[in-house]
Amino acid sequence: MPMNSKIRFSKKRAWSHDLPISFLMQQGVENPGVLSLAAGLVDQNSLPVELTKKSFDHLFSNPKTARAALQYGTTAGSLSLRSLLLSHVSNLEEKSARELGMTVDNIIVTTGSQQYLSLLGEVLLDPGDICLVAAPTYFVFLGVLQGLGARIVSIETDEFGMRMDSLESTLGILESQGQLEKVKMIYLVSDYENPSGISLSQDRRGQVVEIAQSWSKQQKIFILEDLAYRELCYDGPVVPSIRSFDSTGETVILTQTFSKSFSPGLRVGFGVAPKEVCAAICDKKGNDDFGSTNMSQQVLATALRENFYYEHVKHLREVYREKRNYMLEAADTYFSNIPGVRWVHPNGGLYVWMTLPNNIETGFASPLFQKAIHEDKVMYVPGELCYATDQKLDFDKQPPIQKNHMRLTFGVQNHEGIQEGMKRLAKAVKSFI
Amino acid sequence: MPMNSKIRFSKKRAWSHDLPISFLMQQGVENPGVLSLAAGLVDQNSLPVELTKKSFDHLFSNPKTARAALQYGTTAGSLSLRSLLLSHVSNLEEKSARELGMTVDNIIVTTGSQQYLSLLGEVLLDPGDICLVAAPTYFVFLGVLQGLGARIVSIETDEFGMRMDSLESTLGILESQGQLEKVKMIYLVSDYENPSGISLSQDRRGQVVEIAQSWSKQQKIFILEDLAYRELCYDGPVVPSIRSFDSTGETVILTQTFSKSFSPGLRVGFGVAPKEVCAAICDKKGNDDFGSTNMSQQVLATALRENFYYEHVKHLREVYREKRNYMLEAADTYFSNIPGVRWVHPNGGLYVWMTLPNNIETGFASPLFQKAIHEDKVMYVPGELCYATDQKLDFDKQPPIQKNHMRLTFGVQNHEGIQEGMKRLAKAVKSFI
Repeated sequence: MPMNSKIRFSKKRAWSHDLPISFLMQQGVENPGVLSLAAGLVDQNSLPVELTKKSFDHLFSNPKTARAALQYGTTAGSLSLRSLLLSHVSNLEEKSARELGMTVDNIIVTTGSQQYLSLLGEVLLDPGDICLVAAPTYFVFLGVLQGLGARIVSIETDEFGMRMDSLESTLGILESQGQLEKVKMIYLVSDYENPSGISLSQDRRGQVVEIAQSWSKQQKIFILEDLAYRELCYDGPVVPSIRSFDSTGETVILTQTFSKSFSPGLRVGFGVAPKEVCAAICDKKGNDDFGSTNMSQQVLATALRENFYYEHVKHLREVYREKRNYMLEAADTYFSNIPGVRWVHPNGGLYVWMTLPNNIETGFASPLFQKAIHEDKVMYVPGELCYATDQKLDFDKQPPIQKNHMRLTFGVQNHEGIQEGMKRLAKAVKSFI
Repeated sequence: MPMNSKIRFSKKRAWSHDLPISFLMQQGVENPGVLSLAAGLVDQNSLPVELTKKSFDHLFSNPKTARAALQYGTTAGSLSLRSLLLSHVSNLEEKSARELGMTVDNIIVTTGSQQYLSLLGEVLLDPGDICLVAAPTYFVFLGVLQGLGARIVSIETDEFGMRMDSLESTLGILESQGQLEKVKMIYLVSDYENPSGISLSQDRRGQVVEIAQSWSKQQKIFILEDLAYRELCYDGPVVPSIRSFDSTGETVILTQTFSKSFSPGLRVGFGVAPKEVCAAICDKKGNDDFGSTNMSQQVLATALRENFYYEHVKHLREVYREKRNYMLEAADTYFSNIPGVRWVHPNGGLYVWMTLPNNIETGFASPLFQKAIHEDKVMYVPGELCYATDQKLDFDKQPPIQKNHMRLTFGVQNHEGIQEGMKRLAKAVKSFI
């Protein structure tokens, strides 16, 4: 018997090796005393224990609805939930479903919005296809793109989000290099971007739809609008989604989740796309899992129908607004006297994006990260994870990977944890000034 | 603005078009009066409403465990659930985890076992790689393989399951054609195969491990053992799994689900694999969804810990044994006087595999299927869906696609539905004799 036969994995297996998220989680496990300003968990104490119980009891008080929740659902997700989602999106947009060009058939329920992002990538992207992203952007999605063998081209951002002039000039350069036909989508976290906390300005929301449409010369260039943080708005203007500027709904694919606004443990997210895209996603999802957990879909549908959900979101905005303020105050207290340190004041979401002087690197291997985690016992997400620069593209416009940022979250820690974490982090940073 | 730009999907999108499962479900929707002996749903009345409620109440009676269930879990799944799964498998095997060479680190929790099958395919199979399967076998897995662009080579079966002589001769032919290095796995539903109801004999379980090992000349050839129906045993011998014949656990990857034995609405399945394979699956799953629904994992863990689960399985065996008997009696009543019709008596699972005379085809386009669905208002799964024959392989040994079988299930219908369904089906069949 040959004993030395090796496992030969698929080629794409290598593309999802060494994900930064795994490294981060491992650091948390290996350093239990570390205070995490990195973990993307939500606030523990405001998790909707009572409202979930009320929803569950409501559902299980009737054997018929209880059995329906315990039986197989459908691949696209519960029809009653999808009807509620249609109203939900319609309310958020302050437009009728008809005006938005949406029906329940445009909606697919997934295991968090993460699965929607992944499925859309699977059906659209071949290895070598290009996705345009903001620099910085949601680093877990960069991992998804890498796992599919896609190429990631970064676009400059400023305080109003992705720059439209940079987007157009990049598309122009890609066209001149004969690569425009590889561009399949533009990914945008339009509200309170993870990690920067910045929202795309209203002007640019309309412009980006026009740009995507006018550059869809051979094949469709979609906008993938990730609205994970949409409902966590604390102050500042609430602007209409990019999707609302796309009257036919043929250009913008929207995705949202209930992980941030209700409970990540239910794993319910969804997306809205043209029907042809929905059919492709459903076929892939049919092979992958036949449909996401039916019981949590039914629990969430009950929470939406009985208004428990909306009650909770209102409460949650208060909780997170206070935590956001607390982190910003702690930043003032501990960082305002460190020269060259600045940070973004986010109007929503869960993150504070902090910039250090250019010469202080924040990456996993940096002296700062190592000191922070091992000596000062505090952890953050290195900003460089949120930049991807396509090495194959040789032109000026692509922004360089910036190595002097930190993504800090006020999501998981309580007030004391935020205070103590910021204090420890300032101590670590100061030692490198 | 160019208005005619087309959506260009990924190449692999085309591989999961026109799945038979979608067609079947569509038939159900379009023909609401049809009695389905096709749908893979489980028995509606025995769904564990009270036990799920007890588990949920138990979990939510303590704010700490309730919050943990509502928070993010980990990609591999809840550690407490995985510990319970280790004991669960160990009890079923009547061997200690140590004897089986299993730890919690070998276990990954997925959205049903379907997601495990799909993830394993993703990390092992490149387009053109080969998976060996029984003829007939679980048709939804054939869809997964096609979706990955894999090639499917069928192996003959008899009343003891996959024939080992055919397996060896096929491997020999593949080697002589220079294609052995493409073979990545052998897929086996060892207990009460879907669709045939046949179990792999104990002798062959040991043999197939030896065969896989001895033919792993260049790369590892895994056995993927799908034990979805393992706990639904009604009579006949309960034989040890193929995995139990693999003392190092390096060759056999096992997967099970709680969809059949408890509730498909919870969508909890799992798999046991070597650690290197687990790492690959976790990386892919991290990109796909970060982990399956945490709340249903915690509900199921409670049901296992409090023995509610085992209580339920005991009850379920009685329910399904009776329904199995009912369908076999109805087959006797309505089909025994039709010449050339025969069927398998299954000792477990959910299916009765019925064979018609050679000249009566059962496919979607066949006169029988059309008459059954439109006139007699009864639906079955055409047996030919459960056969895949690789067109690129040109040799005698590959069994032909058989077109005269039907997969009938006693899972979803009650006694009256089974009786009436079998009566209608016999009427349809008789008209073609």
